[in-house]
Amino acid sequence: MTVSPSPGAPAVVSPIETDALIIGAGPVGLFQVFELGLQDIRAHVVDSLPHVGGQCAELYADKPIYDIPGVPVCTGRELVERLRQQIAPFGANFHLGQEVRSLERAADGRFDVATSTGTRFVARTVFVAGGVGSFQPKALRLPGIERFAGRQLFYRVADAAAFAGQHLVVAGGGDSALDWAIHFASTDQARPARVTLLHRRDEFRALPATLRRLAELREAGAVEVVIGQPTGFETDGERLARLVLMRPDGSSTTLALDTLLVFHGLSPKLGPIAEWGLELDHKLVTVNPATFETSTPGVFAVGDICHYPGKRKLILCGFHEATLAAFAAVPYVDPERRALLQYTTSSPQLHRLLGVETPSQD
Amino acid sequence: MTVSPSPGAPAVVSPIETDALIIGAGPVGLFQVFELGLQDIRAHVVDSLPHVGGQCAELYADKPIYDIPGVPVCTGRELVERLRQQIAPFGANFHLGQEVRSLERAADGRFDVATSTGTRFVARTVFVAGGVGSFQPKALRLPGIERFAGRQLFYRVADAAAFAGQHLVVAGGGDSALDWAIHFASTDQARPARVTLLHRRDEFRALPATLRRLAELREAGAVEVVIGQPTGFETDGERLARLVLMRPDGSSTTLALDTLLVFHGLSPKLGPIAEWGLELDHKLVTVNPATFETSTPGVFAVGDICHYPGKRKLILCGFHEATLAAFAAVPYVDPERRALLQYTTSSPQLHRLLGVETPSQD
Repeated sequence: MTVSPSPGAPAVVSPIETDALIIGAGPVGLFQVFELGLQDIRAHVVDSLPHVGGQCAELYADKPIYDIPGVPVCTGRELVERLRQQIAPFGANFHLGQEVRSLERAADGRFDVATSTGTRFVARTVFVAGGVGSFQPKALRLPGIERFAGRQLFYRVADAAAFAGQHLVVAGGGDSALDWAIHFASTDQARPARVTLLHRRDEFRALPATLRRLAELREAGAVEVVIGQPTGFETDGERLARLVLMRPDGSSTTLALDTLLVFHGLSPKLGPIAEWGLELDHKLVTVNPATFETSTPGVFAVGDICHYPGKRKLILCGFHEATLAAFAAVPYVDPERRALLQYTTSSPQLHRLLGVETPSQD
Repeated sequence: MTVSPSPGAPAVVSPIETDALIIGAGPVGLFQVFELGLQDIRAHVVDSLPHVGGQCAELYADKPIYDIPGVPVCTGRELVERLRQQIAPFGANFHLGQEVRSLERAADGRFDVATSTGTRFVARTVFVAGGVGSFQPKALRLPGIERFAGRQLFYRVADAAAFAGQHLVVAGGGDSALDWAIHFASTDQARPARVTLLHRRDEFRALPATLRRLAELREAGAVEVVIGQPTGFETDGERLARLVLMRPDGSSTTLALDTLLVFHGLSPKLGPIAEWGLELDHKLVTVNPATFETSTPGVFAVGDICHYPGKRKLILCGFHEATLAAFAAVPYVDPERRALLQYTTSSPQLHRLLGVETPSQD
């Protein structure tokens, strides 16, 4: 007889063993890969967003940054691309779109780490580069409406077929809202009966191609656009029946619906990090500024999430923090080895790790 | 009657008043200009070298650096050029080719600073970004020969006309040695009678055009090349008469001369910094890692010259140090003002200081 997991339980997957696990793939998490790589330590990286870059990608992808030393100006997206290129020699493994839920000390002194999608790690060292926390969808601020969440109110699309035949209202004015409104108005499979895009004003921020496609679908009557701000809602028994809206002229109206999909952007939350037993100071993780180690030996914190005397939440400070943390991690990975300071300009060993040629010397 | 300075005494020059004086124009000193600029503090910068860039320019101008975050690879020269471009909005004043000799607290609490060329500053704050110290010519290692320094032995050319009619021996195999040998062999004014280039082997490191010109002058007999290593010298009364050389085959010979010009490269020396009353630890300046302030309030130390627990001598760490030091300097410059953390991505005030447009917001 073979033992199988009970129906519905997650399959038992062997954990990934790693010398270093980095939580957060923002600029500092990415540079942590680089500095660990220079110490010959390979890393796995987890991030709750579906892409690398963290705040740089999420909050200021197209905005210029002027204070990266040696880079007079670049956008958030460009900085991320530069860092991706820089860390390429070290072949880190990325586990995206999943949040780290738990971090516990295992019997052998390593760390057991599990994510929201069931990925498990056993790590010798952990680097919390969590920035301002994981990005969560901003909730619709209407007192009482949260009781419809998961039934008629959604902040992400888990099952697109579930809305077939319904009146679907998509709230928001950015790329996510428009992309989904366009998707549901154009799909051939399980199409909603009616798609309404709800936004506070008749102006949208999205890629030019997306704006053109929306205009076509409005013209064709496949998407209806309603301008107004939700100020309340009406129920029909246990059902959410209508949103109450304030129009731009201040007048009130209602909008009937079956399902409400809200894309009002993302905001960061510290989330489960608060529950890992790390010493905190005002929702930030306290570290030793000589090593960037937390109160838990072997767990480091770098970037915006860490706190120490003089701390400033700047990307360039995070680069320094990741560097000293990598040096401090060496004895955990290899107790026999001393972290030596070598220079990428002159060290043949670092050149080998970087995969570049050592120039001949006179 | 007007009062004039007595003949030969230095002219009395008014000191330059400044909010911030940066000692050292290496990469960290340059970035210090940037971070002070973001705090609306203008700086003067002094360096002993005749150009900015410090070690980056002097020791690895053409060598690749791989660990500047966001810059996958650049040479020392390129990094300096990028930093020059980045600090351009802040119009710092550079005072090059002069070493800071003294730093003393003035009666009003500011600092009196004087350089080797007589430039004087009165500064509210001082940032020692001195790297490994100031670069000094490497001395010829022959016991006893230093007594001819300034008479027949020189490490720099103060007065090119002084060598007219002499047998000039230029020792060295790099750009400086070749440039001077070529200069003296080609000049129309006050030409030495004979120019000999002395090097340990018949191979030179210089720009291709320089090597071609040297070959022409050797061909024409205007420069004689002697291969050998100085192992001693012979005198004629108080005069240096001959160098004793070891040839590559191990045999010995002598080389008669009137003047010896030595260009064996530069090496850094801590120099006068040791005498400013700053607390030191193994020739490094001890700082508080929350502020990078030294034991003297108002004097900061950043980059390779500073020491604190965990310190690593890396350029990227210096960038962090310069940043926190700039924040800590604000109350010295303007006791009413609190240093606020603003982001170059979003702050209209920082955009004004950087001279860039603030993008319109949604």
